[in-house]
Amino acid sequence: MIEPTVLAAIQSSDHILCVSHVSPDGDAYGSLLGMGWILRHLGKTPVLAMHDPTPKEFQYLPGASAIIGAKAVADHYDLIICLDASSIDRMGAIYRDAHRQLPLLVIDHHITNTRFGTINWVEPICAATCQMLVALADALETPLTGPLAECLLTGIVTDTLCFRTSNTTAEVLEAAMRLIRGGADLATITQRTLNQRSAAVLRLWGMALSQMSLEEGVIWTTVSRQQLKAAGDLTSEGQLSSTLITAAEANISATFTEKLDPQGRPTVECSFRAKPGFNVGSVALALGGGGHPAASGCTLSGTLAEVTATVVPMLKQVRQG
Amino acid sequence: MIEPTVLAAIQSSDHILCVSHVSPDGDAYGSLLGMGWILRHLGKTPVLAMHDPTPKEFQYLPGASAIIGAKAVADHYDLIICLDASSIDRMGAIYRDAHRQLPLLVIDHHITNTRFGTINWVEPICAATCQMLVALADALETPLTGPLAECLLTGIVTDTLCFRTSNTTAEVLEAAMRLIRGGADLATITQRTLNQRSAAVLRLWGMALSQMSLEEGVIWTTVSRQQLKAAGDLTSEGQLSSTLITAAEANISATFTEKLDPQGRPTVECSFRAKPGFNVGSVALALGGGGHPAASGCTLSGTLAEVTATVVPMLKQVRQG
Repeated sequence: MIEPTVLAAIQSSDHILCVSHVSPDGDAYGSLLGMGWILRHLGKTPVLAMHDPTPKEFQYLPGASAIIGAKAVADHYDLIICLDASSIDRMGAIYRDAHRQLPLLVIDHHITNTRFGTINWVEPICAATCQMLVALADALETPLTGPLAECLLTGIVTDTLCFRTSNTTAEVLEAAMRLIRGGADLATITQRTLNQRSAAVLRLWGMALSQMSLEEGVIWTTVSRQQLKAAGDLTSEGQLSSTLITAAEANISATFTEKLDPQGRPTVECSFRAKPGFNVGSVALALGGGGHPAASGCTLSGTLAEVTATVVPMLKQVRQG
Repeated sequence: MIEPTVLAAIQSSDHILCVSHVSPDGDAYGSLLGMGWILRHLGKTPVLAMHDPTPKEFQYLPGASAIIGAKAVADHYDLIICLDASSIDRMGAIYRDAHRQLPLLVIDHHITNTRFGTINWVEPICAATCQMLVALADALETPLTGPLAECLLTGIVTDTLCFRTSNTTAEVLEAAMRLIRGGADLATITQRTLNQRSAAVLRLWGMALSQMSLEEGVIWTTVSRQQLKAAGDLTSEGQLSSTLITAAEANISATFTEKLDPQGRPTVECSFRAKPGFNVGSVALALGGGGHPAASGCTLSGTLAEVTATVVPMLKQVRQG
C-alpha cells in the first residue's frame, strides 16, 4: 500500500520539517506529532511546525511543547513532510517561497487532496491520516507504543468522532485496537478531546435546537454572534451538525454560524454532515470549502439570512447515490 | 474464559428457550437473536421469546419475526438461556413457575447480575452480552458471518454507543472488527439504531438544554410531561444524559423525565451517566434501579421537584475512585 518512494524519501533524509494544517484538529496534531515520534525512533531530528498556536485541548499530547511557529522555521531542510493537509495553502505561513525547491512529501487522507507534493501518498479510504501512519510505522518497523500510540489514536478518535463516522472500517478498528494494546488509553483520549465541550456550548445548543428547521431531508439551524455571546462568549458552535444528523428524518444537516471577517464584514461558517449515500463534500467544494462526503464545511460572505437562502436549496438538491 | 459447563449445557440440549429482558435494548435483541443463530448453526431448534413486542427499530434484525410472546411459551424445554438480564424478574412474564425446575443458563455482562441461574456465565469486563457471544461462537466453532454477525454487532454498537463508553476495550474493537469482516455493516447498524432519533427529540433537547443546571460537577436537566407533549407527543427523552456528560465541567450527568404510573400518579425516570472514575451504578442501585458504573437509571415516585431535590444531592456526593 505504501510506495517505495515514500519510504525512501523518509529513510534518506535526516533534517526533516513536518507540518500540518491551519485550524488544526486532532488528526492534524496526532499525525504531526506521531510523525515526529516515528522519525525520532529512526534516529532523525525532526522539526515540527504549525501555523496556529497549540490550543489547550491538544497541549497534553506528548511532544506538543516542541512545536514551533512560522518565525522559527528555517529555509532549508532535507525534506518537508506535510500531514493531513488537502492543499498547499493549508500549511499557512509555515510553507514559504524558499521551501518550493525542497522535496515535499504529502501524506493525507482527504479525497479533495490536490497532490501538491513532489511525492504524494493520499489514501481517501483511510478515516484519518493517523490511520495511514499506523501502516507507515509498520513499514518502518517502528513499534506502536508509548507517545506514538497515544498521538495516532488521538487522530483516529477525533476524525471518526470515536468510530461514529461512516468511513469507520474494520481496518480503522484494527488500527485502534493495536494502538490500545500498545498502551494508548481510549477512554482518556475520548475524554480529553471529544468530551471537552464547555457547558456553555450545550447551552448554545439549547438555543440553536429550539429554532432548527427540517425540510426535504435537510435539517439545519443558525447561530448568531449574539447567541455565541449570550451563551458565554463562545467562538464556536461545537459541531452541532454531528448531532443534527442523528435525526431519523434527515439525510443532510447544516449549522450556519455568524462571524465577522478581519475587515468587520459579516461572514458565515457553514458546517455540513451527511448520512451514508449523500455527499456534502461536493457542495462544500463548490462553495470554496472542502472536506469529505460525510462531513464538510466552508465560509461564505454575507449575513445568516443571505447565506442560508443560498446554501439550503443547494443541500436540498443533493441526491442519494 | 468460558467454563466447560456452559458449553456442555448448550451442546447436550436440543429444545432450548432463549429469553432476554423487559424494556429491551439493542444488546437484548442482538444477544437473543445471535444466540438463536448460533444454536441453529449447531443443529438445534431454539425458541426465542421476549416479554415486550419488538419495537420498530429492531424489527429489521434477522430472525426478529420469529420472536414469540409469553402466551406462546411452553412449560418444558431442555434448557433456558437467559441473555443480558441482571436478575430473574427482568425476564418478565416469559419465565414462570413451571420453568423453575428447568436448567437455566445465565449469560450476562452486568456487574449487578444476581447469579440467578443453575449455570451463570457473567463477564462484567465485557461491554455487551453480544461481545460474550463472539467468544461463545468461537468456542462452538460457529463462523461470525451473515445474520449472526449483524445481530452481534448491533448489540456491541448500541451498548457502547458506537464504542464511545469507557468500557470499550481493545477486545471490543477486535470483536467488532471481526464481525465487520464477517459481513456486518457498521454504518447501516449505526444508522438504524443510534441515528434514529426523531427530529422531535432534538426539539425537546432544545428545551431541556436551555434549562440545564451545573453544580459541583453534576450537570442535570428535567423534562416535563408538558414538554414531551409539546415536542411532538414523545414518550422518551432520547438519552440526553449521554450528551450532557460530554460537558468538560461535568463528572456526572442526569436527566429527570416526568411520567405517570399506571395509577396516574407522578413518577420520574432518572437516567445517569458518569465520566471514567465516577460510579453512578451504585446510586441507581441504592434507589432501586440498576446499570453500570458509567450508565445507570431508576424510576422514583414523586414530582420532578421532589425527585431532583432527593437525587441531585446524592449525585453530588459521588467521589472519584
